[in-house]
Amino acid sequence: MSNNGGIRITGRYNSAPPTTNLLMQPFELPEFEAFPSEPESDAAPRAAPGQLPLSVQRVDMCLLTNKKNHNTSAYNIQNLVVRRGQEFIMKVTFSRPLTQTDDFQVEFMIGSKPLASENTLVVVTFGSRQGGPWSGRVVEAQGQMLTLGITPAARAIVGKFSSYVAIATANGIQRTRSDATTDLYLLFNAWAKDDAVFYPDEAGRKEYVLNDHGMIYQGSIETADSVTHRSWDYGQFERGVLDACIYILDVSKMPITDRSDIIKVVRKGSAMINVQDDNGMLVGNWSNDYSMGTPPTAWTGSVSILLQYASTGVPVCYAQCWVYAGVFNTFLRCLGIPARVVTNFISAHDNNGSLTTNLVFNSDGSLDTEDTKDSIWNFHCWNEAYMVRVDLPPDLGGWQVVDATPQETSDGYFRCGPASVVAIKEGLLCHPFDLNFVFAEVNSVVVSSIKDRYGTLTKFKEDKNYVGKAIYTKAINSTAYEDITITYKYPEGSAEDSMTMARAQEYTSESIQPKLPKAWLLVKMSAAQVQLGQDVNLAVVFTNQSDVSQTVRAHLTGSVIYYTGVRASNPFKNLDFSVTVGGLQEKSTALRITAQEYLANRGSLVSLSFVVSGRSGDQSVSARQVVSLQTPELTVTVSGTPRVAQQMFVTVSFTSPFSFALRDVIVSMEGSGLISPKQRSYSTIAPGSKITWKESCIPQVTGLRHITASLDCSDLRGVTGFADINITK
Amino acid sequence: MSNNGGIRITGRYNSAPPTTNLLMQPFELPEFEAFPSEPESDAAPRAAPGQLPLSVQRVDMCLLTNKKNHNTSAYNIQNLVVRRGQEFIMKVTFSRPLTQTDDFQVEFMIGSKPLASENTLVVVTFGSRQGGPWSGRVVEAQGQMLTLGITPAARAIVGKFSSYVAIATANGIQRTRSDATTDLYLLFNAWAKDDAVFYPDEAGRKEYVLNDHGMIYQGSIETADSVTHRSWDYGQFERGVLDACIYILDVSKMPITDRSDIIKVVRKGSAMINVQDDNGMLVGNWSNDYSMGTPPTAWTGSVSILLQYASTGVPVCYAQCWVYAGVFNTFLRCLGIPARVVTNFISAHDNNGSLTTNLVFNSDGSLDTEDTKDSIWNFHCWNEAYMVRVDLPPDLGGWQVVDATPQETSDGYFRCGPASVVAIKEGLLCHPFDLNFVFAEVNSVVVSSIKDRYGTLTKFKEDKNYVGKAIYTKAINSTAYEDITITYKYPEGSAEDSMTMARAQEYTSESIQPKLPKAWLLVKMSAAQVQLGQDVNLAVVFTNQSDVSQTVRAHLTGSVIYYTGVRASNPFKNLDFSVTVGGLQEKSTALRITAQEYLANRGSLVSLSFVVSGRSGDQSVSARQVVSLQTPELTVTVSGTPRVAQQMFVTVSFTSPFSFALRDVIVSMEGSGLISPKQRSYSTIAPGSKITWKESCIPQVTGLRHITASLDCSDLRGVTGFADINITK
Repeated sequence: MSNNGGIRITGRYNSAPPTTNLLMQPFELPEFEAFPSEPESDAAPRAAPGQLPLSVQRVDMCLLTNKKNHNTSAYNIQNLVVRRGQEFIMKVTFSRPLTQTDDFQVEFMIGSKPLASENTLVVVTFGSRQGGPWSGRVVEAQGQMLTLGITPAARAIVGKFSSYVAIATANGIQRTRSDATTDLYLLFNAWAKDDAVFYPDEAGRKEYVLNDHGMIYQGSIETADSVTHRSWDYGQFERGVLDACIYILDVSKMPITDRSDIIKVVRKGSAMINVQDDNGMLVGNWSNDYSMGTPPTAWTGSVSILLQYASTGVPVCYAQCWVYAGVFNTFLRCLGIPARVVTNFISAHDNNGSLTTNLVFNSDGSLDTEDTKDSIWNFHCWNEAYMVRVDLPPDLGGWQVVDATPQETSDGYFRCGPASVVAIKEGLLCHPFDLNFVFAEVNSVVVSSIKDRYGTLTKFKEDKNYVGKAIYTKAINSTAYEDITITYKYPEGSAEDSMTMARAQEYTSESIQPKLPKAWLLVKMSAAQVQLGQDVNLAVVFTNQSDVSQTVRAHLTGSVIYYTGVRASNPFKNLDFSVTVGGLQEKSTALRITAQEYLANRGSLVSLSFVVSGRSGDQSVSARQVVSLQTPELTVTVSGTPRVAQQMFVTVSFTSPFSFALRDVIVSMEGSGLISPKQRSYSTIAPGSKITWKESCIPQVTGLRHITASLDCSDLRGVTGFADINITK
Repeated sequence: MSNNGGIRITGRYNSAPPTTNLLMQPFELPEFEAFPSEPESDAAPRAAPGQLPLSVQRVDMCLLTNKKNHNTSAYNIQNLVVRRGQEFIMKVTFSRPLTQTDDFQVEFMIGSKPLASENTLVVVTFGSRQGGPWSGRVVEAQGQMLTLGITPAARAIVGKFSSYVAIATANGIQRTRSDATTDLYLLFNAWAKDDAVFYPDEAGRKEYVLNDHGMIYQGSIETADSVTHRSWDYGQFERGVLDACIYILDVSKMPITDRSDIIKVVRKGSAMINVQDDNGMLVGNWSNDYSMGTPPTAWTGSVSILLQYASTGVPVCYAQCWVYAGVFNTFLRCLGIPARVVTNFISAHDNNGSLTTNLVFNSDGSLDTEDTKDSIWNFHCWNEAYMVRVDLPPDLGGWQVVDATPQETSDGYFRCGPASVVAIKEGLLCHPFDLNFVFAEVNSVVVSSIKDRYGTLTKFKEDKNYVGKAIYTKAINSTAYEDITITYKYPEGSAEDSMTMARAQEYTSESIQPKLPKAWLLVKMSAAQVQLGQDVNLAVVFTNQSDVSQTVRAHLTGSVIYYTGVRASNPFKNLDFSVTVGGLQEKSTALRITAQEYLANRGSLVSLSFVVSGRSGDQSVSARQVVSLQTPELTVTVSGTPRVAQQMFVTVSFTSPFSFALRDVIVSMEGSGLISPKQRSYSTIAPGSKITWKESCIPQVTGLRHITASLDCSDLRGVTGFADINITK
């Protein structure tokens, strides 16, 4: 009997599936369970004839050995953490040495209603009888102590199991008492060939599963050298983070039995990292009002977000795409899934499942903001997770796009993926999940139309190469980026690229676009990289391919935009100008936008968007240029002895280059294994002045560690800095 | 700016998409709209120089001609109903004959925020200028009156459009006033080659789009002649039904722009027909307590359900699968989509996405109801809708399974499909939507396991041929069934069947099943068809393939089950017996179950399930037999003159063959175009007595019409009857 929407539904279900493994009141197997054939009154164990009673004196989960073999030593947790599809050992000490007739088994249990048929109750036997899907063997017998080797199935459920040693007595099963210290966390295993997340290379596993720090790329690719990086502390091994990741799955009400399936786990993860639909973790905010929470630009890592959500159950404020991607990456790596954060520069956000992004211009050359529904993001961050796709034809496994940013609903919920990167490259959009949407993000054709005075749209331009300019991720064992565009797309203009686009179009219900009129007028716009506070110099070049002189009526619109391409306010600049271009000539017009013009909007400054349109005779043309404003870096330095358990110091400093004061400034720092997340506020940083913040810390682990810092206020978003420190013994 | 879960999200969306076309306060285009280049103060139309002012005097939507050409005459509605991708005509009378310089256009608009870029505002021009995606031509000009031909795009949005005639004056657009009588319903078009729902055969279109009556098959295929039919009044043309179908899409908040896409419309329909998740239409109830609504077995058609939901907005109580399928069929045909109701006999309900149905037996031979999660339905009804699948490789179009019964969530919601029937037959489960689930319904392998006293499961039987025995739908132009099993599966045991099963298994994460031990013991069970109130005779045959005599300890469990295979109460029969079978011999045991034994449970009587298990040495065997209890038919007769607008009479009668009294009996009848849904209650029908109910009616349409009647009470569910009448002029 199930309860659904307040309506009793009998006769349809046997029972509702269990959906949580972090129980307030843990389910416990009984200490003694009589065999079904025995009288029920027989409630105490009876030894076999001629045998001394047997009992279990001690169970040792062998944490040190197992964690080392399973690459889980870094997890800051008291319990055993192992990966599925790989043997771990347990040492069981009995009350006396075992004889031929003694019989015992080890049982693992997850969720509120463990059942052998669902693999939520697993019986492991050691040669005496047939057991469940996990195999067992006696590695060594020394007197009363047995060393047992247990190999969880490579398709086992991932989560927190309790464990029992059970002795078969003459009349029933006698178990060890329930004991939280023998609870076991089972993870996905990138080292196991039979696991769907097997990753074939050790350097890759170290980066994509074990690295708890990374770089997220942002900024703009439209002007030279404008790509910026943001250091991010994933912190998947920090205390409480693994429990927080399991908590997320429990809150999602995902059936325990589904948690063996990598495809379902990552899809559910992409739904749960955002608050939408399901009371998930992160509240998005793309306004400039972050007064009710932490600005997306102020976070330095995932740990405080995960711990806050798991301890309060309340969604955390606020996120934008790199925050979703950073936290989702922690979730994936923490559960053992190879994962990385990826940035797509000039990312189309296509809101109707077509493969085109539509820009509609009014007859006066200005953008029609009502009719223009789609947007183009300067950059967009998502994740890739590595897996076999058993649900798809071979060859579509490997990296899969998963995206937790709530852009559009996927089949009813805000979630996205897994979408095979190979399928995107090949245009094979006929498979699950969300291939259309991701394909459009990297391949959308930008279609410009003009609306005449009768309300009819006429297309005048199609740009196939504007969107998806470059796709970056952090390189393995380096802080530099790796350009992975080639994994998503064949080179623009190649025969394979045309084939892919044609195949993709077949799988959409896109109507056939009318042919464009022959173009004789062209326009291009360019700008150099600009520091925040400097003037912007634009060059607009019209090319006249007809053989007679033409006068172009042109219009320039300048707006402050969020990185999502959406305007923050009304345009700060609207300029009509006209240009006469001789036959078969081109003419460049220099336009200067002063800092005063755009700084009036600096409350939400992220970047500037300029759209120029021009009209002459039957021709309409337009061009778009985004100028990402560069901000100064934060300086992070370390001093003292970088040794485990010795005090050392971290200093974050910043000198304002601005002519205006910064107010209500938040400075943050953190470094997994080194220093927990910390924040400090400054009410004012005067023009040209310097702040310095020194903190002491005591490193807990050896190896290369990272400090990430950020500075954030309403007039200056997303200033970051970082430092690497090698911690020795 | 969008409002999502109470959180303002700016900087991310331009605006929320419109989701309704039945507005309380309809959106209206202004009667005069000045051209953008004109001064804003110029708020009245100005005639072109040297021209008399032009205005529209009359617009005629030509209902009779258009409805005949578009096969929509049967819709009982005041407005024009046409199908997309096919020309309809409009007659427009102007204030004077048009001259060369006059310019006008026709505009169609749907939803609260019509936009040309979204095709929710469509501008149709007639040769003078470029227009929108619908084409227009002047068919005939007679003085002031023009006959216009308008062809909506074959991919147009389906729903209710308002229409305007607009004249281009010298300084702006002047429109006709908003007028509800010129509103237009646009439907999918099975007659148009370019429409995704094109059906290539006229007899098929008449059945699957235009027939407003049908047969739904039920009962059991396990005993001979136990398949029953149930007459169902679809009533898709009845007054208010088309508006109710559009209301359902509006309640679902489905964006208007998505309603051009057949795949999205049927998927959304399958979610909305059930109440789950989205405040949809029908509340399921598989208990035997229907006191808060109408028993699922009492409905005779869809009309009253649709009208009740649309007029109150409150979900309707109660449905089981044939009610969901019947109402969904009305929804589909009403919107112009070729659709039919299909019954799958012995339908597996696999609740974990595997391709196996697991039955777990205790060591005493009884079924372990905790560990047995899946169920097997005697029959299950779903729908097929016919369409091109542009999102899939070619050849996977045609009939698609869609299912509104809330069995399992599909990617988060209770909905199912569209799932290509061809893909099911070929085992191509790597495409959307829900192919795994439907494949299992018709192909699931029934795996029987025994649970030993240590809690370990051991498989002892695999039955590949039990599930999906036969799939029936009503034949075209007949009330007989058509067996369409071959469209879902290759013949059992054929080479193609093995290939399909192998391919399907590749696409699931199913673990490899251990080999079965060699079987030397077999069991079969059989029964004949039984009338409710008669004794049941079972024959249990054990076959011993070893060459020595064996004694089998056997156990029989008899339960009353719902048609879903779920037990209604504790078993009414538990019998241990033992059989000795000689080497290489078989032995039949006759078991008689008296009516008294099962009638004690008759409150929820649907059918009886018998499970026999046997054990001998290392062998366990089991067999299952469902006995569907036959009920008497209801007699429906007509008298009087079967002519349009003439009174005639319908008589429903029933004679109880039972030895017990029937209490609180509901008798229902309806017949689209003949008689609206009616109900009558009888507090008692005494043993052996007869009831007779005569109603008068006045037929409204000619042709073959149908009366459907049902009789329902808690002791006797689902007694139905029907009659056909040919109505003449």
